[in-house]
Amino acid sequence: MGEGGFRNRETKITIVGLGLIGGSYAKALKKAGFNEIYGIDLQAESLEKAKAEGIIKNGYTDSKEALGKSDLVIVCLYPKDTVEFIRANMESFKPGCIVTDVSGVKDGLIDCINGFIRDDIDFVGGHPMAGKEYQGIDFSEASLFEGANYLITPSENSSAESISLVKELACCLGCSNIEVVSANVHDRMIALTSHVPHVIALALISCEDALSGKNFTGNSFRDITRVANINEKLWGELFMLNRENLAKQIQEFQNGMEAIKQALLKPSPDELEAIMKTAKQKRGELD
Amino acid sequence: MGEGGFRNRETKITIVGLGLIGGSYAKALKKAGFNEIYGIDLQAESLEKAKAEGIIKNGYTDSKEALGKSDLVIVCLYPKDTVEFIRANMESFKPGCIVTDVSGVKDGLIDCINGFIRDDIDFVGGHPMAGKEYQGIDFSEASLFEGANYLITPSENSSAESISLVKELACCLGCSNIEVVSANVHDRMIALTSHVPHVIALALISCEDALSGKNFTGNSFRDITRVANINEKLWGELFMLNRENLAKQIQEFQNGMEAIKQALLKPSPDELEAIMKTAKQKRGELD
Repeated sequence: MGEGGFRNRETKITIVGLGLIGGSYAKALKKAGFNEIYGIDLQAESLEKAKAEGIIKNGYTDSKEALGKSDLVIVCLYPKDTVEFIRANMESFKPGCIVTDVSGVKDGLIDCINGFIRDDIDFVGGHPMAGKEYQGIDFSEASLFEGANYLITPSENSSAESISLVKELACCLGCSNIEVVSANVHDRMIALTSHVPHVIALALISCEDALSGKNFTGNSFRDITRVANINEKLWGELFMLNRENLAKQIQEFQNGMEAIKQALLKPSPDELEAIMKTAKQKRGELD
Repeated sequence: MGEGGFRNRETKITIVGLGLIGGSYAKALKKAGFNEIYGIDLQAESLEKAKAEGIIKNGYTDSKEALGKSDLVIVCLYPKDTVEFIRANMESFKPGCIVTDVSGVKDGLIDCINGFIRDDIDFVGGHPMAGKEYQGIDFSEASLFEGANYLITPSENSSAESISLVKELACCLGCSNIEVVSANVHDRMIALTSHVPHVIALALISCEDALSGKNFTGNSFRDITRVANINEKLWGELFMLNRENLAKQIQEFQNGMEAIKQALLKPSPDELEAIMKTAKQKRGELD
């Protein structure tokens, strides 16, 4: 990569997978001043759109050329596809390049990649905590990551310089909190803060009265169920790859629901009000 | 009330309780062209603010005068206070007037009011499904009810004319769906669409990792927990008054969470994906 990281904006960047996330990376990085952005996608149509919009310089359905000249490769695929892409293209990466990803689970995935990655490539796990309940490059936008949390999960092999560059990348996207954590802490926390909310949305909209309640909804119901408009292939994979953490966090959440249900049955509202007071205070600290 | 309902905008309206909801009624009705709006509140300060902003013509800490001249009285108090206010001021209401409320529970409350209300007063239950996680007139706004659902729960004694007038009221506020339902259907549905979402927010923010997860949150976590910033006195009352319905709906939601947890433990993601597909379709029908 050389000195100065992104300072000169001449870094050659390849984005693999120009969907909602990959497309948003391309738009945000173009807006941040980068011009040497390449796209790799199986869909020639996505590449053409990206090129026509001027957010990539060139697009490739075959990976070899783009990978061979890129200093930074951002793999924006589903978790298992991320591993398989890196494995299948192992010989094409430029010596000394940095590879990062966007997967919402990290633990097994990074171990797996470290098992076969070349010594002269630095893999640094990344997870921009932003998204939408819609898929594809047409929904991508430069502002998708603005103000979002960005989690970086280096392995013991990642160099300080590479970690620093992925931090810079997150800054260029406009993320406001950048956190470096281990893969297993990442997965435990994400099970609660991202996976459980999606499970809640699914369970709530699955309730018998949910649809007959169409004219009875307020904002809270619509806010919670919004993410039930889910990409079942992606989220099925994320859930299954993180199933142990997720099952534990679901159980803890269930215990909280049960405690409130029990408090409801008490003759006095004191216990219920105490739960609410504590919760309100915690929510205040979140902002 | 005379013929024509609200058509001439000269109807004399009293709003009891100038908090977030009452203040928003006053602002929305003023904006809709009504000028004969009076306020009753225990806090002289709220009345002064409302008068200074020009959203009420006059404010009263003593109820008698305003009630004696009003064709429509909108009681914007907590559920139990609503019953007690109407009971305590029973002799002050103008003959032939319509009284409505904004309570988020209806079943026991309407029976109770019907037990003591004068024959020449028509009580029509109302529930605008809008609110905020903040309290007081300072947060009130004319647009609070725009696009919201408005539920009307008449009793067998409510006249068709009175029901029609409360519908007009909801139209004046800018509500987009107005539904007339029985009190018990209201309470069963609201338990799911309003009370369960608040219980979910409380249970989720109560999870052990919730605060250490501050840098791990995405929009879904923040959306769900937003309403945990709760008015514990009001919601404690709403929950306790609707405890049977709420306990049942919590149980059904819990069953849905459990089904997903069990699907996670299966070797294949098929069952999980099937749950997601059905949920996604249902969410689509909600919009």
